[in-house]
Amino acid sequence: MPIASNSGITMEELQLGGRNHSLPLEGLKHAITPIGMHYLLTHFDIPLVEAETWRLEIGGLVAKPLSLSLDDVKARPARTLPVTLECAGNGRALLEPRPLSQPWLEGAVGTAEWTGTQLALVLEEAGLAPEAVEVVFTGLDRGIQGEVEHAYERSLPVAEALRDEMLLAYEINGQPLPPQHGFPLRLIVPGWYGMTHVKWLRSITAVDEPFTGYQQGTAYHVRDSEEEQGEPVTRIRPRSLMVPPGIPEFLSRTRFLPAGPCLLEGRAWSGWAPVERVEVSANGGETWSEAALDEPLSDFAWRRWTYEWDAAPGEYELCCRATDQAGNVQPLGQEWNYDGVCNNSVQRVKVVVSES
Amino acid sequence: MPIASNSGITMEELQLGGRNHSLPLEGLKHAITPIGMHYLLTHFDIPLVEAETWRLEIGGLVAKPLSLSLDDVKARPARTLPVTLECAGNGRALLEPRPLSQPWLEGAVGTAEWTGTQLALVLEEAGLAPEAVEVVFTGLDRGIQGEVEHAYERSLPVAEALRDEMLLAYEINGQPLPPQHGFPLRLIVPGWYGMTHVKWLRSITAVDEPFTGYQQGTAYHVRDSEEEQGEPVTRIRPRSLMVPPGIPEFLSRTRFLPAGPCLLEGRAWSGWAPVERVEVSANGGETWSEAALDEPLSDFAWRRWTYEWDAAPGEYELCCRATDQAGNVQPLGQEWNYDGVCNNSVQRVKVVVSES
Repeated sequence: MPIASNSGITMEELQLGGRNHSLPLEGLKHAITPIGMHYLLTHFDIPLVEAETWRLEIGGLVAKPLSLSLDDVKARPARTLPVTLECAGNGRALLEPRPLSQPWLEGAVGTAEWTGTQLALVLEEAGLAPEAVEVVFTGLDRGIQGEVEHAYERSLPVAEALRDEMLLAYEINGQPLPPQHGFPLRLIVPGWYGMTHVKWLRSITAVDEPFTGYQQGTAYHVRDSEEEQGEPVTRIRPRSLMVPPGIPEFLSRTRFLPAGPCLLEGRAWSGWAPVERVEVSANGGETWSEAALDEPLSDFAWRRWTYEWDAAPGEYELCCRATDQAGNVQPLGQEWNYDGVCNNSVQRVKVVVSES
Repeated sequence: MPIASNSGITMEELQLGGRNHSLPLEGLKHAITPIGMHYLLTHFDIPLVEAETWRLEIGGLVAKPLSLSLDDVKARPARTLPVTLECAGNGRALLEPRPLSQPWLEGAVGTAEWTGTQLALVLEEAGLAPEAVEVVFTGLDRGIQGEVEHAYERSLPVAEALRDEMLLAYEINGQPLPPQHGFPLRLIVPGWYGMTHVKWLRSITAVDEPFTGYQQGTAYHVRDSEEEQGEPVTRIRPRSLMVPPGIPEFLSRTRFLPAGPCLLEGRAWSGWAPVERVEVSANGGETWSEAALDEPLSDFAWRRWTYEWDAAPGEYELCCRATDQAGNVQPLGQEWNYDGVCNNSVQRVKVVVSES
């Protein structure tokens, strides 16, 4: 991945930024993100899939390969789960120097109710062979990245693939998946960053050695340089975001509000352990106060937080930071990495408070 | 509106580009754009509106002011119309130098089926006074632009407002408007650029002189400098776009395909008159060939075009251009203007064809 040599966003990044989209931060008011406000990253093109001819092939190291139609999948036991999805590259454009890829600021997140059937049941029916170590999920989307032509595919270790919460999902928020979210079927891997939730699934293949395809073996690693192997990206680091208070100025998005009590609110999540604490700062992170927490929507979805701020006239940099039960805390600044992934540094919102 | 002093996109533009989103061009395969793929521009924040307490106030120079609930609006005769909407700023980021605002490339467009009640019937019931010259539409979204705090509002001359096709719409593609498309009610002005289709409507006001609010009197003009008044932006200029053929390279979005017959396809539209011709060029606009045209979806929606391209190995710049019945043709290059609006220059798609 090349690194930007200047501070201006390049036309290539802009092309990606125009195709993919963020949750506008006022969308954090919704516990369940409405379709069309949820973040969306598409590596290649969104495939146009005919439900009638589509099949899901389950094969490789299994006793009984399966070929399922969409109706076959829907005939199985259904489960609905609210899940927070975040792109591993969220925050990339805030890094300096900037890895050249999708230039996310902070909104590459969303929470939806995904309905599908348990992956474990399908794998059980197919009969995973004892020598299987990973399960590879292949999408119908195809393109060139890292100078390699490939279908988008990612793997999970068998033990992860067999977890209860893994879903083969055909509905979002009670509706059939729209094309951009993976119609007719996608993988949902609660707690993991978005790259693992393979869309437009066409096959699931059990294999006897770790999968090394581009999106798994090369991309999505925390590393300092291209030469380094680094650590693979897996679960979502804790993050909290706030609904920017007041009203915006169109271009700068600076926020303006009158002095007085102001309810700050937002959402916080972590893929490692439940969020147990959210703090708020009105001075760029010098001092912190405890926010109140609502119950999480599920074990794998964000929880709402609120904080009563008594806003006096002046200029502020509002921040929030989450801590999870595993002791992970959002950093004030980000440790740079070559892929620009796993950036969970605290959000900073510029606010101007006027006399009321 | 300031002008960018360098070629790199600024962080302020990136913030807007991340909030707002384009139709990914493969989305042109859909006659009706799925929710979540339609382009979206929000000047300020997306308001969170409670349907139960929301009212639409129709007032100003009318005989009988009305205050309507959402149920009142829905109880009126309903009409569904496929309409192509395009942002007036589509293509802005292709201008040199670049006006600093939402940095659209080419995808700020979409076609949806909008269901609502005719604006003319509501205005008739309220009894427009003879001295009314314009009707002002005010949204619930509020912010600061051009150093003025205001609610988003735009006007139409009375004769335009009374046209049959103007809708007060509460559904998109058969579903209640999602928050980002203007829930619970928005204006639909078929044939006009998107800035006129006021979302989150809260009032409709008949006035006896031309409305001069920021979004009408200052913004959205074709002009050479800030000092000039310029011509107001109204109807959509003709444009055609193609689905980029082949498969993409992730970062550059250059397209790769094997030699052989390749069906190029896309959509074309104009708000001035029906599209009567689409031409395709494989050499950057030096020579052109006629594309075949399907029927338009409605008087106010795009029509599909196709062209059988016999792709030989090599590198190409594919282009398409539309002509409407009023004789308007897409230009090869764009005439610059200060606001970066009404840019309908031809699309250019880089394609590499390999030996098959």
